[in-house]
Amino acid sequence: MSSFATSKEGYTWSPEKGLQAGLATEGAIRPLSSFAAAQSSKPFDTIVIGAGYAGLTAARDLTLAGQKVLLLEARDRIGGRTWTAQVDGEKYEMGGTWVHWTMGYIWREITRYGLERKLKITPNELYPDYAFNRTNFNGTIFTESFKPNFEMCENAFKRFVDVDGQLGATVVAIPTQVMDGPLVDPELVDKYDRMSIADRIAEVRAKNICSERELAYLIPWFVLSWGARPENASMLELIKWARHGENSFGMLASILWFYKFADGQSHFAKSFFDEAFESGNLCYSLETVVTKVEDRHGSVEVFTNKGSYKAAKVVCTLPSNVAAKVQFSPPLSPLRQEAFSQKHVGQGHKIHSLFSKPEFRSGVWNAWNEPGHGETLELAAAFGDQTLKDGRVSVVSFGGGNSAQNVPSQDPTKIKRWLTQVDPELEQPYLGSIWHEWIADPYAEGHWCMWGPGHYTKYFRELQKPHGNIEWASADWADGWKSFIDGAIEQGGKAAYRITKEWRRRPQQSRL
Amino acid sequence: MSSFATSKEGYTWSPEKGLQAGLATEGAIRPLSSFAAAQSSKPFDTIVIGAGYAGLTAARDLTLAGQKVLLLEARDRIGGRTWTAQVDGEKYEMGGTWVHWTMGYIWREITRYGLERKLKITPNELYPDYAFNRTNFNGTIFTESFKPNFEMCENAFKRFVDVDGQLGATVVAIPTQVMDGPLVDPELVDKYDRMSIADRIAEVRAKNICSERELAYLIPWFVLSWGARPENASMLELIKWARHGENSFGMLASILWFYKFADGQSHFAKSFFDEAFESGNLCYSLETVVTKVEDRHGSVEVFTNKGSYKAAKVVCTLPSNVAAKVQFSPPLSPLRQEAFSQKHVGQGHKIHSLFSKPEFRSGVWNAWNEPGHGETLELAAAFGDQTLKDGRVSVVSFGGGNSAQNVPSQDPTKIKRWLTQVDPELEQPYLGSIWHEWIADPYAEGHWCMWGPGHYTKYFRELQKPHGNIEWASADWADGWKSFIDGAIEQGGKAAYRITKEWRRRPQQSRL
Repeated sequence: MSSFATSKEGYTWSPEKGLQAGLATEGAIRPLSSFAAAQSSKPFDTIVIGAGYAGLTAARDLTLAGQKVLLLEARDRIGGRTWTAQVDGEKYEMGGTWVHWTMGYIWREITRYGLERKLKITPNELYPDYAFNRTNFNGTIFTESFKPNFEMCENAFKRFVDVDGQLGATVVAIPTQVMDGPLVDPELVDKYDRMSIADRIAEVRAKNICSERELAYLIPWFVLSWGARPENASMLELIKWARHGENSFGMLASILWFYKFADGQSHFAKSFFDEAFESGNLCYSLETVVTKVEDRHGSVEVFTNKGSYKAAKVVCTLPSNVAAKVQFSPPLSPLRQEAFSQKHVGQGHKIHSLFSKPEFRSGVWNAWNEPGHGETLELAAAFGDQTLKDGRVSVVSFGGGNSAQNVPSQDPTKIKRWLTQVDPELEQPYLGSIWHEWIADPYAEGHWCMWGPGHYTKYFRELQKPHGNIEWASADWADGWKSFIDGAIEQGGKAAYRITKEWRRRPQQSRL
Repeated sequence: MSSFATSKEGYTWSPEKGLQAGLATEGAIRPLSSFAAAQSSKPFDTIVIGAGYAGLTAARDLTLAGQKVLLLEARDRIGGRTWTAQVDGEKYEMGGTWVHWTMGYIWREITRYGLERKLKITPNELYPDYAFNRTNFNGTIFTESFKPNFEMCENAFKRFVDVDGQLGATVVAIPTQVMDGPLVDPELVDKYDRMSIADRIAEVRAKNICSERELAYLIPWFVLSWGARPENASMLELIKWARHGENSFGMLASILWFYKFADGQSHFAKSFFDEAFESGNLCYSLETVVTKVEDRHGSVEVFTNKGSYKAAKVVCTLPSNVAAKVQFSPPLSPLRQEAFSQKHVGQGHKIHSLFSKPEFRSGVWNAWNEPGHGETLELAAAFGDQTLKDGRVSVVSFGGGNSAQNVPSQDPTKIKRWLTQVDPELEQPYLGSIWHEWIADPYAEGHWCMWGPGHYTKYFRELQKPHGNIEWASADWADGWKSFIDGAIEQGGKAAYRITKEWRRRPQQSRL
C-alpha cells in the first residue's frame, strides 16, 4: 500500500498513545498548489470554491469541456465532508461512506473510474450477515437476533411513514421532486415540513400505529440519520427518504449502509481530481481560505488568504453552515442569508472504535432516551464495520442531539463513556477510537445537512438559485439524494453543465 | 406542438384508413446528413456506428471532449430501438419507454437536460391507480381488483426468485456484476444460466412454492419481459432483474412501468444529438448503412452505401442480432461471431391499440397458454397507457414466443384477433393500432435483448471486449440495466471514456 501524505485533520485516541491529531490520507494532494503566486493574475474561465465532491465534479466536467479552471480548497486535502484516513495500515471513512447502484450520479462515476468491482460489504465479509441487535431505549435493554428484528422494523417503518394511506406518495411522489413538479401538492408538502418527527411519534403512539418495541428500534435510527433530536427533524425529509427506497426499509438499509470502497472514498475523490488535472486545464490551491467574492459585471474576483483570482464564473460549494463566513458583493439575497444563518441540524458524531471482541463485528446497537427517561445519549447507533488484519474489530457509531458543544477531542475518555451508555458490554474490550470532529470543523460546522421543520419549504428553492455569475452547488440542496455524495455529484455536474452550455454559445463558436 | 419530419418507419392501422406506413417523429433529423460527399475524405478522431442511445451518448461525450466525430445511422431517424411517433397530435413510444431515478445513467442525463419535471405516469394521470386486472391463463379467465392482485404477486415473485433462501443474492449479489466481481460464485452463475424459467416453473410447481393463481399472473409477465417463451428464457437474467429491484416486485414495477417523458423519448434522444452538434465537432449521416469495417494499424475505415470514412477509433453500437451483417477485417473472434449468430430471444411485439371504452385506461391484462392448454398466444400482457385528447384510450400490449414470423403488417386485422384472445371484451370497442415491427426490422431483428439459457455465461465477457480499434457499446451487453436505455447510455459513456482517456495521453498534451 503506497504511503499517503498526512493531513492536519482527524484524531485518534488510545490509552497507550493518548490523543493524536493529523492522519494520513490519499486526499492529501501534494504539493498544496499547482501554481506560483506570480501566475495569480491569470484569468480563469471558472473558479470552483471547495474541493468536496460538488467542487471536484464541477472542476472535472469543466476542465474536460475545455475550460481553464481554478480549484480552491481551505483544507489541506480534497474530499470535503468525505475522506479516508489511513491509520496503522487500515482505512477508516471519516465522513461520507456508502454507495449504491441506485444512486445514479455516483454510480455512473464509480463505473467510469472502474471502481465498481472494488467494493466491501459493511454488514460482514460475506453477504450481509449481522447476528444480533441490542436496543437500549428509555432505560430498557433488549437483545435479539438481527434478522427477525430487522424484518419487524421493515413493517414498522412502512406504517410510521404512511401518513396518507399511500406510504407518503401523495406528499412526495417522485423523491427527486419535493418542491416542484407535476405531482407536487404544495399544501401537503407544507403540512409535512411543519411536522417534526417528534410530532409524528406522538401521533403514532396516540393511534397505536407502532408498538413501543418498534419505536425503540426506529427512533434511534432517526437520530442517527439526522444527527439531531426528533423534535428538530422535519417529517418531510423522512418521507422523501422513504420514497427514495420505495418505502422499503430493507432497500434503504442496503442503499445507505452496505457497500463501500475497498480503496476508500479518498481514492474515488482523487479519481475526479486526477482526470481534471490530466486535462491540462486545472490549477488548484489547497489551504486556501476564501474570504470574499466580488461579482462585478462579467467578472468575479475571489479573495483568499493566498491572493485574489478572477474568472468569468464561480461555482461555490461551501456547506450551508459555513457559507455565511464569506462576504459576497453584491450581498446575497435576504432569504439566502437567512437560510445560511439557520444552521442545519445535522450536528452528530461519527466515531470508529476498536474492540478486542470478534463477535462485535456482527453486532448492531441502537439507543435513545426520550425526554424524561434519563440522560440524553450522545451516541444513538453503532454497528460492526470491519475486522482489522490483527483481528481487532472496528465498530462505527453515530449520534446527535446533544452534541453541539460536546466534542471528543476536549476529553477523549468521554467516548468510552458514551459507548458504555449505549451498551455496558462495550466497556471492557474498548481499545481506542478514530474520528473527525465535524461539529467543530470550521469548514463544515456539522456533518451531512439535515433540516429542521420548515426549512425545506422556506429555503430550498432560493439555495439553488445562482447569484449573478456565482453558481451554488452543494449536496445540502440537491434534488435527489440531498445530503449524500450522490447529491454533491449531482449538483456539481448540474452547475458545470449550466456554465458550459452558456460558454459554448460564446461568439467565436463555429460549426463544421 | 411543432411539426416533425416523417420517418419511413412505423405503422398505423384503422378500419377507415387501412394500413399506413411512415410516422412523424422528433427523431427524424433533417437534413439527413451534415456534410457533402466531397468532404468524405476528412479523417475523424472517432466514427460512431449507430445513433441509438449508445451511439448518441458516445458521440456526445466524445464531441464534448474535443474529438471530431462522425455519427453514422442506417435509419432515417435517431434513437435506434427507441423512438416516439407522432400520430394525430398524440405521442406513442414505439420502443423503449419508461425511466426511473434509480437507473443511474439515464437519470443523470434526464436531469442534465432538465426533463425530470416533464414526466407522465403510465398507470394513470394521478398517482398509480389501476382498477382491475384480468388474467387469462390456460383457458381460465379471472378478473380482480388490481391492488390485492398486485400485492399477491409481490409475495409470489419473491418466492419464485428465491432459489437460495437469500432471494437469489448468493447467485447475483450486486446486479451490475453478474460474471465478475468479489462476490461472484461462478458455479452458481453457471447453474442458474443453464436453468430456464420453464425449468424453474416446473420446480416451483413440484415444491408448491407458488399457487396456480400466482403462476397465472407471473408467467405472462415473464413472457412480456423476455418477448419469448419461458423455456427460452434464462433464470440467471430473472434473478439479476429481481436483484436490481432488491426483490420487490412493487419496486420493479415502478422502475419498469410507471414514468415516461411527456415530450417523448425522441425529444430526450435529440437532446444528446443537439448537445453533440452544438459543440461544433459532430458530423452525422442518416440513411447510411455500414457494410464493412477495416482496421488497419492505427486507422479504421468504415465502408457504407454513401462512401467510406476513416478514423482512429470506432464505437460500434450495432444490436447483437444484426451485427453479423457487417463484415469486419480482421474478422471478429470466433466466440463473438458465434454470439452474433445465436440470435437473442427478445422477439416480441409492442403494439398500441385504441379503444372507445374509457375504463380500459385503468386495466391490466395478462394472458398465456402453456403447451397443451390451447393455442400459444401472440400477446401476453396489456395495460392502459394514456387517454387521448378526444377521449379514446390507448392500451399498450406486449407478447412473444410465437412471433418470429408473425408480423402485423402482413395482415393487420390479426391484431384485433390477438387482443380478443387475451380478452373477448377488447373486441367490440377496438378502433385501430400503432406499432413498429421490431422482429422484422432489418436494423434490429428483435426488440430489447434477452438471452436464452447459457448465453450470458458463454458470451457476455467476449461481447464487451474491444476488437482492435473498435469499441463495442450496446445495451445488449451492459453491466447494469442490460437491455434498457440506461444500459445503452452506460455502454456509450464507457466506450467514450476509454477512448478519450487514451486520446488525452497523446504526445502533444501539456500541463499548466
